[in-house]
Amino acid sequence: MTTCRQRFLDALACRPTDRAPAWFMRQAGRYLPEYRALRSGQSFMDTLADPARAAEITLQPIRRFGMDAAVVFSDILVPLAAMGLSVDFVEGTGPVVTPPVRTRADVERLQPFDAHVATASLASCLRLVRAELGTERAIVGFCGAPFTVASYAIEGRSTRDFAETKRLLYAEPVVFEALLARIVDVSIGYLAMQVASGADALQIFDSWGGALDAFTYRRAVLPHLVRLVQGAMATGAPVIVYVNGGGHLVDELLTTGAQALSIDWRVEPRAARRRVGAHVALQGNLDPLVLLADRAAVERETRRVLAEFAGHPGHVFNVGSGLIPRTPVENVSVALDVVRGSRA
Amino acid sequence: MTTCRQRFLDALACRPTDRAPAWFMRQAGRYLPEYRALRSGQSFMDTLADPARAAEITLQPIRRFGMDAAVVFSDILVPLAAMGLSVDFVEGTGPVVTPPVRTRADVERLQPFDAHVATASLASCLRLVRAELGTERAIVGFCGAPFTVASYAIEGRSTRDFAETKRLLYAEPVVFEALLARIVDVSIGYLAMQVASGADALQIFDSWGGALDAFTYRRAVLPHLVRLVQGAMATGAPVIVYVNGGGHLVDELLTTGAQALSIDWRVEPRAARRRVGAHVALQGNLDPLVLLADRAAVERETRRVLAEFAGHPGHVFNVGSGLIPRTPVENVSVALDVVRGSRA
Repeated sequence: MTTCRQRFLDALACRPTDRAPAWFMRQAGRYLPEYRALRSGQSFMDTLADPARAAEITLQPIRRFGMDAAVVFSDILVPLAAMGLSVDFVEGTGPVVTPPVRTRADVERLQPFDAHVATASLASCLRLVRAELGTERAIVGFCGAPFTVASYAIEGRSTRDFAETKRLLYAEPVVFEALLARIVDVSIGYLAMQVASGADALQIFDSWGGALDAFTYRRAVLPHLVRLVQGAMATGAPVIVYVNGGGHLVDELLTTGAQALSIDWRVEPRAARRRVGAHVALQGNLDPLVLLADRAAVERETRRVLAEFAGHPGHVFNVGSGLIPRTPVENVSVALDVVRGSRA
Repeated sequence: MTTCRQRFLDALACRPTDRAPAWFMRQAGRYLPEYRALRSGQSFMDTLADPARAAEITLQPIRRFGMDAAVVFSDILVPLAAMGLSVDFVEGTGPVVTPPVRTRADVERLQPFDAHVATASLASCLRLVRAELGTERAIVGFCGAPFTVASYAIEGRSTRDFAETKRLLYAEPVVFEALLARIVDVSIGYLAMQVASGADALQIFDSWGGALDAFTYRRAVLPHLVRLVQGAMATGAPVIVYVNGGGHLVDELLTTGAQALSIDWRVEPRAARRRVGAHVALQGNLDPLVLLADRAAVERETRRVLAEFAGHPGHVFNVGSGLIPRTPVENVSVALDVVRGSRA
C-alpha cells in the first residue's frame, strides 16, 4: 500500500494516485485548541525559535486528522528577520516589520545570511518532524515569493492597497528591483536548507501577487520569481507556486517551470487544467470559508471541488487560502473524510 | 462638436467616439483639498443629507478637471439606511452598519421605502447637478450590487474574509436569498429615482462579488444581480456592472444584459473584449495606485491602458477601483490629459 508521502509526491509529479492527497494551508494554527494551548503566553517569533514546540505544532494536525502532508510551522517573514529587520506579530494588526524598506540605502542594509545558522531553529524543527513522520508522510517547506515578502518589507505591515509597494514599483523601479533580487538571493539558500533538513516539497507563497496586473507582474516580478523557482528546483524537491487571487496570472506562473500551481477557489479547475496542460499538477481549491458552514455544505462543496479536478492525475486537495482561526475543527475532519472516500 | 455627455453615451452604446470618454471612480473625494475643506466638521451621512453640499462635491472634480461624466456623491449603503439600519462612517474603520442582519427576523425587519421620499436628498442633489451641467456632461448614478450590500448588512463592517456572509450563504441559503431579494426590491426603485432626477447612466458596484467562486456566484448571487440590472435597464438608462476582482466572473456578468462591464486592472482588456463581443462596452482599467508614482509612470501606464483597449469602439476610460485619499491631484490631471490626447 502506498504511503501518504508517496501519494503526495506522485500527485505533484502528475502520476496516477488512488485518491487526491490532501493538506490544508494553515492546518497548523489557531483553529486548533491544542495549538492555542501550546502557544499561550509565548510570542509568535519566540515559538518559531523553539524547535521542539514548532515541531509539535507542525505535527498537531497530523495527529488529529492525518493529512498526507505536514506543512512546517513557520512564517514567510522569517527571512526578513534573518536579514536584520525587526519582525513582530501584533494581535489584531498582524505582522509589523521595522524599519520599512523604501530606499536604496534601506535595501543595502539588508544582510545576506547562512540559513543553516541564522534560521537553525527551522532546520532543527524540520529534522524533528522528519524523525517523527519517517517516510510515512510528506513535509512541505516554504517561503514567500519575492513580491509578497517585499510588500511586507516596504509597507511595514498588512495593507489592502499596497500603496507604498506600488509607488516604489512604478516610481523607483531600480530600488524595487534591488529589493526583490536581494530577497531571492537569500530565499534560495533558505529553501535549500529546508530540503536538506527534511522537506519533501517546497511551496512558494505569493500571497499578494494577485494585486498586480499581468503586464506589470511579467515586467517587474516574474523574472525574480522564475529565478527563485529555478533555484528551488535545483534542490530536487518539487515546487508548488501559490498566488492568491492569481487567476489572471496562470500563464505567467507556468513559465516558472514549477511542478505545481496552487489555485484559489476563484480559479475554475477545468479551465486551469486546460491552460496548464497534462504535466503540471494543480493544488486546491476549496474556499476555506465553506468550512464555517454546516456539515452538509462542507460535504457538498468538497465533493464539487473533487469532481472539478477529476479526470486527470495531478491533483493535491487543499483550501484556496489558509484556514481562518474560527474554522470549526470538525469540519476539517468532514472535508478530509470526503477526500479519503470514507464518507459515503 | 460632440458633448462630453454624448461621447460617454456613445461609448456605452459601442458607437465610435473621437476618443475614449473618461471619469474616475471616487473622483469626488478625499484626495481633493476642496473636498476636505467642504467636508470638515460634518459627518459623512450628514453631508449626503445636504443636497447643495453633495452637489457641490459632485461638481468639484468636474470644475477642476472636466471629466466627461460626474458621478453623484453618495454611498452604496444609503439604501441600507433607508431600510432602517443605522449606517455610520467611522474614521479608520470604514462603514459600520448596526444591527447586523443575520437571521430571517433581521431580514424581515428591513423596510421597503419610496426612494423619492426616503432618499429625497439624493434626488435633489441630482437635480442640482443636472441644472449645473446641462446636457454638456453626463451624470452617473449608482447603487451597490445585492451581494456587496448584503455583505455590509451581514458583517456590519468591512471585512477581508466575508466569514459571516459566506457562512450565511452556505449554511442558511434561505435567509441569504431573502436578504438579497429584499435589497434588489428597493434598489430598483432607488435607481429609477436617480434616472428620474437626472442620472444618464447607472453603475452597479459589486465591490466584493469577486470573493466568490463562479459556481457559487451563479447559484447564489447572479439571479439577483440579473433582476437588478433588468430593473435598472427598464429606466432606459445604460447600465454598467462593476465587480472588483471579478475577472473570473466575466461570462456570468455578460448574462445580466448590462450595456457595459467595468473591469479592474487585473483583467486584460483584449481578452475581455474577446469574451464580451462587439456589443458590450468596457470601462477601465488603470490601476489607481499608478497615480501615486511620478508623472512619467502615469503617462506611460495610461497610454498602455488606452492601447490595450484600442481598435474597438466601446471604451470608457476609468480606474480599476476608486482613487485613494493620498492620490496626488496633479496625477489625475496627467492621466486625463493623456486620454484627451492633449499630451504629446
